Amino acid sequence: MTSGTPDAEIMVARAQMSETRRPTVAALEAILQIEHRVLDHGFVRVIDYMGDDGAIVQAARVSYGRGTKKVSEDRALIRYLMRHWHSTPFEMCEIKLHVKLPIFVARQWVRHRTANINEYSARYSILDREFYTPSREHLAAQTTINRQGRGAVLEEEQAARVLHLLREDAERSYATYRQLLNDPDDPDHDADRTGLARELARIGLGLSTYTQWYWKTDLHNLFGFLRLRADPHAQFEIRIYAELIRDIVRQWVPVSCEAFEDYRMNAVSLSAAEADVVRKVLAGTTLSRPQNISTREWSEFATRFGIIGA
Amino acid sequence: MTSGTPDAEIMVARAQMSETRRPTVAALEAILQIEHRVLDHGFVRVIDYMGDDGAIVQAARVSYGRGTKKVSEDRALIRYLMRHWHSTPFEMCEIKLHVKLPIFVARQWVRHRTANINEYSARYSILDREFYTPSREHLAAQTTINRQGRGAVLEEEQAARVLHLLREDAERSYATYRQLLNDPDDPDHDADRTGLARELARIGLGLSTYTQWYWKTDLHNLFGFLRLRADPHAQFEIRIYAELIRDIVRQWVPVSCEAFEDYRMNAVSLSAAEADVVRKVLAGTTLSRPQNISTREWSEFATRFGIIGA
Amino acid sequence: MTSGTPDAEIMVARAQMSETRRPTVAALEAILQIEHRVLDHGFVRVIDYMGDDGAIVQAARVSYGRGTKKVSEDRALIRYLMRHWHSTPFEMCEIKLHVKLPIFVARQWVRHRTANINEYSARYSILDREFYTPSREHLAAQTTINRQGRGAVLEEEQAARVLHLLREDAERSYATYRQLLNDPDDPDHDADRTGLARELARIGLGLSTYTQWYWKTDLHNLFGFLRLRADPHAQFEIRIYAELIRDIVRQWVPVSCEAFEDYRMNAVSLSAAEADVVRKVLAGTTLSRPQNISTREWSEFATRFGIIGA
Amino acid sequence: MTSGTPDAEIMVARAQMSETRRPTVAALEAILQIEHRVLDHGFVRVIDYMGDDGAIVQAARVSYGRGTKKVSEDRALIRYLMRHWHSTPFEMCEIKLHVKLPIFVARQWVRHRTANINEYSARYSILDREFYTPSREHLAAQTTINRQGRGAVLEEEQAARVLHLLREDAERSYATYRQLLNDPDDPDHDADRTGLARELARIGLGLSTYTQWYWKTDLHNLFGFLRLRADPHAQFEIRIYAELIRDIVRQWVPVSCEAFEDYRMNAVSLSAAEADVVRKVLAGTTLSRPQNISTREWSEFATRFGIIGA
Repeated sequence: MTSGTPDAEIMVARAQMSETRRPTVAALEAILQIEHRVLDHGFVRVIDYMGDDGAIVQAARVSYGRGTKKVSEDRALIRYLMRHWHSTPFEMCEIKLHVKLPIFVARQWVRHRTANINEYSARYSILDREFYTPSREHLAAQTTINRQGRGAVLEEEQAARVLHLLREDAERSYATYRQLLNDPDDPDHDADRTGLARELARIGLGLSTYTQWYWKTDLHNLFGFLRLRADPHAQFEIRIYAELIRDIVRQWVPVSCEAFEDYRMNAVSLSAAEADVVRKVLAGTTLSRPQNISTREWSEFATRFGIIGA
Repeated sequence: MTSGTPDAEIMVARAQMSETRRPTVAALEAILQIEHRVLDHGFVRVIDYMGDDGAIVQAARVSYGRGTKKVSEDRALIRYLMRHWHSTPFEMCEIKLHVKLPIFVARQWVRHRTANINEYSARYSILDREFYTPSREHLAAQTTINRQGRGAVLEEEQAARVLHLLREDAERSYATYRQLLNDPDDPDHDADRTGLARELARIGLGLSTYTQWYWKTDLHNLFGFLRLRADPHAQFEIRIYAELIRDIVRQWVPVSCEAFEDYRMNAVSLSAAEADVVRKVLAGTTLSRPQNISTREWSEFATRFGIIGA
Repeated sequence: MTSGTPDAEIMVARAQMSETRRPTVAALEAILQIEHRVLDHGFVRVIDYMGDDGAIVQAARVSYGRGTKKVSEDRALIRYLMRHWHSTPFEMCEIKLHVKLPIFVARQWVRHRTANINEYSARYSILDREFYTPSREHLAAQTTINRQGRGAVLEEEQAARVLHLLREDAERSYATYRQLLNDPDDPDHDADRTGLARELARIGLGLSTYTQWYWKTDLHNLFGFLRLRADPHAQFEIRIYAELIRDIVRQWVPVSCEAFEDYRMNAVSLSAAEADVVRKVLAGTTLSRPQNISTREWSEFATRFGIIGA
Repeated sequence: MTSGTPDAEIMVARAQMSETRRPTVAALEAILQIEHRVLDHGFVRVIDYMGDDGAIVQAARVSYGRGTKKVSEDRALIRYLMRHWHSTPFEMCEIKLHVKLPIFVARQWVRHRTANINEYSARYSILDREFYTPSREHLAAQTTINRQGRGAVLEEEQAARVLHLLREDAERSYATYRQLLNDPDDPDHDADRTGLARELARIGLGLSTYTQWYWKTDLHNLFGFLRLRADPHAQFEIRIYAELIRDIVRQWVPVSCEAFEDYRMNAVSLSAAEADVVRKVLAGTTLSRPQNISTREWSEFATRFGIIGA
């Protein structure tokens, strides 16, 4: 996890230490407010958090009542809850992040509806001249395996041409934006021309333009976000945010995050028919595709279990 | 706000002080973990919180961007947000409560869906012998004004009879519950009899039995809860919880809570037709009921504005 | 699926046929409005629905765009969506049910928050004299395997005693309720006594009392409800409702329901460590518990796959 | 409400008539599937709906119980529910729309989280060459009254220049997009060049590019959408969609929509302090600003009530 240089305002925020009776997590306090850089201009900053691994246990034990406390250790209980899909105890932790991200990433992110968002408004304010340009190694062709995602990386000459086109368009769009705004504070301000309303001037800006928001969610829903967005099928540009946030979660609630990775993130789901196949093989039968599994599903199954020549 | 005597476990939790870089609210820290008593056996305890009035301003300013900061004061901004129904900045604060409450109150409470709940489970654990009995001054007849709510308080003799019946039934149901459970730890345990499963033994318990839960929600949704449940039309037994929580919120985010009380809780909504009436009176016309307001609505309007003989 | 005798009002509702340009499902139209009986006094009635299997495909294809339509068949697409956790297309179908159920079942049901509910209000109206009594074969002891659920069925004599106690208490509570209400329409009305407010009179009623509501949810969230509540670990009294609703869903969206049962309901989730075990066995290694799987988890694993002596 | 020419596929969908026992609304059936044009390339199509005004009454009466039915008329009940903030009965109606809209409008729209969305995916499919260009009368300067919204319309010459810039940039971005994709079906396909992955090629497209989605929501949340987005403070480009949808809702549930317009959309909210002012004026006192109302609020108050020289 690389960290950017905190600016003056962040330094001030970090310097303010208070006493609290709430649960605190030292590892997370250590990185509070700091900008963790993502992509070329993006970042993730932890602004605040509520609860820790212990808070999950505490909430779960209201539903289990007295007595359980002595029997189970905290770790075993958390893993039991995760394994058996008890989601409400994980909702008892909450985290608030400040994120800077390209608009096309924001458009995927916002589909996770059980979260609170305050986004920078281009109706009120002027956007900075910052847009995302992929690094060369991420410029890939459309995959040929399915209809979605990336395949082979472009050759050097072609990649250079792509980057040139993306940059040129982004710069031209931004120049048009400032020209339309004709803001009095701009060095190129033309006093003879009326500026266009901000809410209209921005409509020609590209989807690669950076925006930022405060994003707050509970741990259960954050796990749901990570399962979909830290997955290899997610688009690279959102996945890299998700992976960084997963690293943060590991520091915040290490026991819960490990359970999540074991029982959700890296778990494998067997369909009813696939479970029957596994049952038979565990009982000594030779592996073979049954009729109720299509060849496409069988190929997905073989891939997941590294079966050669299935 | 009266407070119960914290027991040993709460004393330990309160003694644990840590340093944090997060925003803290001294007035709320002072009452963290403490049981605030409600009804005869209920309580509300603040377990944790995230954010303060400043956190609302901070989140809102992401959407307002640079510049605004110098112009508006925090208080003016919070009041502006509340007045113009900007709800997302208030979602940036979160509070977690431990509440003990009668089941019939819990059934009303749970209808506020945008909250996280972990409830004590009577499938796993045995419920305590605690049930709600109204105090004498709250024993009232059905109101005759509408189909819902309470009217005149019962006379002493009748009230005594009602209390006797409620107590007797609650005690008998609880005795049956323990008998059905036939728990090995019970003094009356009968070794010759099998105990009934907990999930079944409890079905005869009354709705006045106390349960408890951890309840966590954001400030915007908490205001929604307060607007409906601290309202005079809410049933007394949930209203008294809501009023206590409103007192807690006043200590937590005093500026936001004041704005909520001014622009929501104590605000008055005029229908399109009523607004026209007020417009005319402000312009000097004499007050009279227009045809597009029914007599029932007119009577509600007169009541809200203390108009006599309207 | 047994069906109750529709009363006059239902007969009228069923007789009203209209023409529509919306998708319709003949199998569901055939049972619309009819009461399907559950437990001793409960029922489930389908009131309305939106969409069918085709509506899921149609919505998904907005996100896939033109072209796909020719390649994939509808069934393959629906199964692909289910297998790869694409939940939004399933949210495009909606169903509305009228359900009569005991209050302790309603308390579990309402924890599924992404649904719309209108419940019969005991603040406004008087509840009927109907409460749930388990049938003899469902009277079971607390299980000894875990802290939750039922074990062996009670012997006849003990069962009879339990039923007697449950019935006696429920009848007494209901008699008290009517006495407290002292409703003018009651044959036993005592004109010398004031009736207690409805919202208070009901607090002594047992959790086995029946209530009813209109419940509306989308297909994705309905599947979530079914996965948890039609599961063998769910309490029998809610499971039997869930199973009936699953039967209804099979008639409504047969392809989606089959995919749900194959990839969710009857699927088996392997933890990261368990998946490694299966991978090794599929590659020819002998089955044995690795160190990173606890004995408790290993025993759960063995049970799920019918492994003897693992 | 102007309607576009339905294409062949829509004609087929409209021709399919079925019989149903569900409530139907003739006025809505008449426009089902038809494209209602919005902006230069957008549209709104009603795909499906559930319920009518009667369904709201039916659901509400579960909570009122028997007896009420005879007393209140449906219209009075619906207006009572709206006036007293009973939201759950309105959640019992649902509507599904197919909408084509510019991305910057979609970004505002999606903030209404309690809705179901399936959006056309530019990771899977290629976007059409369609982008929004404001008509000349909507090209306005930034307002000088507050930080948000539009002021005076631009003069002809300046407007022409703005339109030229917006169109030129949008066309160039789209040309770059197709060049990056280098799709084999394109007439300009260059066989010597690898196409860029779709998920990357689209990042330079402007926010004015059109997207489309299926959007489904219940009536209560739709009213929430309309209150904010059909409001004069909403950006013109989303407001025009909201106004069209409000026209559709008027045809679907006329009684509820009228109640919504009377008690929400066109209602006026008085703060506690403002209500006191009105109370005093209604009692005969002369109008004047009390100390607890700031000059800014007083000016907002005067504007809402058309008070001159307040």
